[in-house]
Amino acid sequence: MKPLDIIIFGGVGDLSLRKLLPALYYATRDGHVPEGSRILCVSRTKYEHKDFLELVKSKLQEFLTGVFDNKVWQQFKKHLVYKDIDLGDTASWQKLVEFLGLPEDREAEFGREVVYYLSVPPTLFRPVCEQIAAHKLNPSYSRLVVEKPLGENLESAKAVNDVLASTFCEQQIYRIDHYLGKEAVQNLFALRFSNRLIEATWNRDHIQSVEITVAESVGVEGRAEYLDRAGVLRDMVQSHLLQLICCIAMDTPLSLDADDIRDEKVRILKALAPMTPENVADHIVRGQYGAGEVDGKKVPSYLSEIMNSGKELDGTGETYVALKMKINNDRWHGVPFYVRTGKRLPSRYAQIIVKFQPVLRNLYETEQHNTLTIEVQPNLGISLDMFMKQLMSEDANLISHRQQMDLGTSYSADMMLDSAGERRLPSAYEKLLIDVIKGNQTYFVRDDEIFAAWKWIDGVRKAWSEAELPMQTYTAGGKGPNAAEKLLEHSSHKWTDVKGAK
Amino acid sequence: MKPLDIIIFGGVGDLSLRKLLPALYYATRDGHVPEGSRILCVSRTKYEHKDFLELVKSKLQEFLTGVFDNKVWQQFKKHLVYKDIDLGDTASWQKLVEFLGLPEDREAEFGREVVYYLSVPPTLFRPVCEQIAAHKLNPSYSRLVVEKPLGENLESAKAVNDVLASTFCEQQIYRIDHYLGKEAVQNLFALRFSNRLIEATWNRDHIQSVEITVAESVGVEGRAEYLDRAGVLRDMVQSHLLQLICCIAMDTPLSLDADDIRDEKVRILKALAPMTPENVADHIVRGQYGAGEVDGKKVPSYLSEIMNSGKELDGTGETYVALKMKINNDRWHGVPFYVRTGKRLPSRYAQIIVKFQPVLRNLYETEQHNTLTIEVQPNLGISLDMFMKQLMSEDANLISHRQQMDLGTSYSADMMLDSAGERRLPSAYEKLLIDVIKGNQTYFVRDDEIFAAWKWIDGVRKAWSEAELPMQTYTAGGKGPNAAEKLLEHSSHKWTDVKGAK
Repeated sequence: MKPLDIIIFGGVGDLSLRKLLPALYYATRDGHVPEGSRILCVSRTKYEHKDFLELVKSKLQEFLTGVFDNKVWQQFKKHLVYKDIDLGDTASWQKLVEFLGLPEDREAEFGREVVYYLSVPPTLFRPVCEQIAAHKLNPSYSRLVVEKPLGENLESAKAVNDVLASTFCEQQIYRIDHYLGKEAVQNLFALRFSNRLIEATWNRDHIQSVEITVAESVGVEGRAEYLDRAGVLRDMVQSHLLQLICCIAMDTPLSLDADDIRDEKVRILKALAPMTPENVADHIVRGQYGAGEVDGKKVPSYLSEIMNSGKELDGTGETYVALKMKINNDRWHGVPFYVRTGKRLPSRYAQIIVKFQPVLRNLYETEQHNTLTIEVQPNLGISLDMFMKQLMSEDANLISHRQQMDLGTSYSADMMLDSAGERRLPSAYEKLLIDVIKGNQTYFVRDDEIFAAWKWIDGVRKAWSEAELPMQTYTAGGKGPNAAEKLLEHSSHKWTDVKGAK
Repeated sequence: MKPLDIIIFGGVGDLSLRKLLPALYYATRDGHVPEGSRILCVSRTKYEHKDFLELVKSKLQEFLTGVFDNKVWQQFKKHLVYKDIDLGDTASWQKLVEFLGLPEDREAEFGREVVYYLSVPPTLFRPVCEQIAAHKLNPSYSRLVVEKPLGENLESAKAVNDVLASTFCEQQIYRIDHYLGKEAVQNLFALRFSNRLIEATWNRDHIQSVEITVAESVGVEGRAEYLDRAGVLRDMVQSHLLQLICCIAMDTPLSLDADDIRDEKVRILKALAPMTPENVADHIVRGQYGAGEVDGKKVPSYLSEIMNSGKELDGTGETYVALKMKINNDRWHGVPFYVRTGKRLPSRYAQIIVKFQPVLRNLYETEQHNTLTIEVQPNLGISLDMFMKQLMSEDANLISHRQQMDLGTSYSADMMLDSAGERRLPSAYEKLLIDVIKGNQTYFVRDDEIFAAWKWIDGVRKAWSEAELPMQTYTAGGKGPNAAEKLLEHSSHKWTDVKGAK
């Protein structure tokens, strides 16, 4: 592998210090960052090189408590460079041009690949892209990494995308949804496409329902302005939850190539049954948390958090949604996807439960459903519930055996051990940054996926606003609005208990 | 449960002391033999009650080394009774009539159920049945237990059956094939009929082949006369192996009732593709072991064992067969069943391997087959091989994860612990005897199963005799005849390595 340059705009911001630099620290240790590569952190503040290193080191020590390894640091810090650049000031960009050392002839070999990471507010996307273009810092072997929010509806998403697309072509743009970097999600593809038992049964003939839960225990956390405007439908469903649905529901792709996989994901997004003002009340519940108790601590209601945020806000953002979704294609016709996400639930976790139909004719005393459970976070695992006879029991007595497909057992290389010799799960950012370095777009979101997701989300918002869908309330630390249970009243499914709820 | 009487003809013979009485000892301990029941051992020899008890106790202590429990013995010995009866002598039978205490009116309530266990040579079946009939000891609530060999071909099997049927109706006859008493075999039904994932894929569309291996390490072991006449085709395939095939291949029964299950098993036996003189050489290999080494000990060849047996024998019995079988029905059309059994193989075990087809389109680097492995003996287990991505690896790298459906985890009741507190697997005899006591025929072989099995076996023998199928030889302690490998030359399957063979 040839050395490359990674430029982080917003390089001493929270995301960079908390996630990106620790991920690159591990990637360096594990041999994924070629020797001679440079990691340039850019921001407006002035830092001496020494002070910048001191800052990064202290943050790594903080976030990698107990596993920070000075040997790795010595190796990692050789990559680190800092430049203070005012992104809006053309003259200031000269520093970057010099750093990258472009040859006079812009068409000639750039020398090394360049990755730009836009860890800055979306409002800065335009000036940065314009400057990159103006200085011709966007040869075909450069890459751009961006993160949500990419727009707040289809129209603004297209506007954001136009900005990126004016400077980079789609093959250069890496849109991060960190759920796609999670090992359990990536393993879904292997599970689905390499096991005949699963491949053969992964459809409406054998699956009864799919349930997806993404629970958070946090509340507003200083994001009042964005959250109250966007709500979790846009903050969580448009991105993470729709991506999970795509990975579960997509058809077998032509190959494992990034675009073949993304072609299939787009087909799912386009096939999502639209919500209308007439049917939205039967398919969606939205809510806001009231005061309550999470993790033994009393917490205030959403509205009082909003009120005390010091901003002029309406308090109209939803902190919870539950949806009954359908996919209009042959594979999933008639299979409900039950989806819910909320803040101030008792614990933080994400899990997918695929419930198979019972056998055609049940010979046994109780009804059985094979169930595939995918734990996305904080635990990581895929397990399958199957049934067996209890030893020496009457034949009609079955018990369930959980087959844990321990993702952990596949650890073998030393590189997966941290300095304390403990097995360590790579973070989603680490996996995704390594993919960027390798130029593999598989686990990044393509422009048409973003647009299709927004199109469906815009329809939901239009429907619930026209139908004046009521805003339910629920107790912080509880299981969510009661109306969510009612949503499933006439279905064959009941929500799995929210972990930690009484 | 009401007390009952269990009469063991041949009650101090090897089978009784080694298997039946230990099984009844455990069944008593575990509450399956109602208080007040009697276990009557019958043979010609005279024993004082005390001496009989002493004999049984010493044998239990020998065969239950380390787990014999005097408390259980005190409970068990209350059931034990001995009578010396000359089975051919009508007068001698009066002792049994008195013991059973039949009322004058034979149509009235017998008082308690009676189980007769014929642990005697088949030549004695007729006199025993005639005496039972003559003394009207066969009311509808009596049961008869017999074991193979039940005939040596269809004709003689029908003759044996006529003897039994003259005195007992089919609902009273319990034909033991102890493979049906094995937990892993019984659990096959639960696995197949209660798991949608398995039910949906258990057919020619998804299964590529089935392999069954029953390996023995013993040689002739004093059974020279019978073995040389019968060969393993009749000794093993006609009974155990065809029963295993039935359990794997049968359609879902109407219910778990004994006759519904046996109806389906018969359908499989009738659907076995017949062997003809023209095709037998492409479908069967037979062999006899030569001298070799098993378990580090030099052992003589089959022919020299036969020669030194002191009997006048031809040395024509086969000690090994490998078969490529087909089932002529919709579920299994085109799916080969590879079956082999032999003596003087390196170790004793029985296992079934169900190999699924690969996925329709393989996106990965290597071809994968989901595989279900059923270990019948000496280990007990069902495991499923599935594929996952290796953590942090390239997507195309898969590794196999073995999902062990540990039958042992279903142990929970105290009754399953032996006196040393160890988990204990009940023996096949124990399970089957408890079924006899309960009157459950599910795991016993019905007359039409015996006939259908013999009909197919007779066809094989006729075919290989007309075709003069050569007798291969193989080294004792090796993997069997080389010709067995050749049998699979043009198929998609290779035999799984024989355990312990170099």
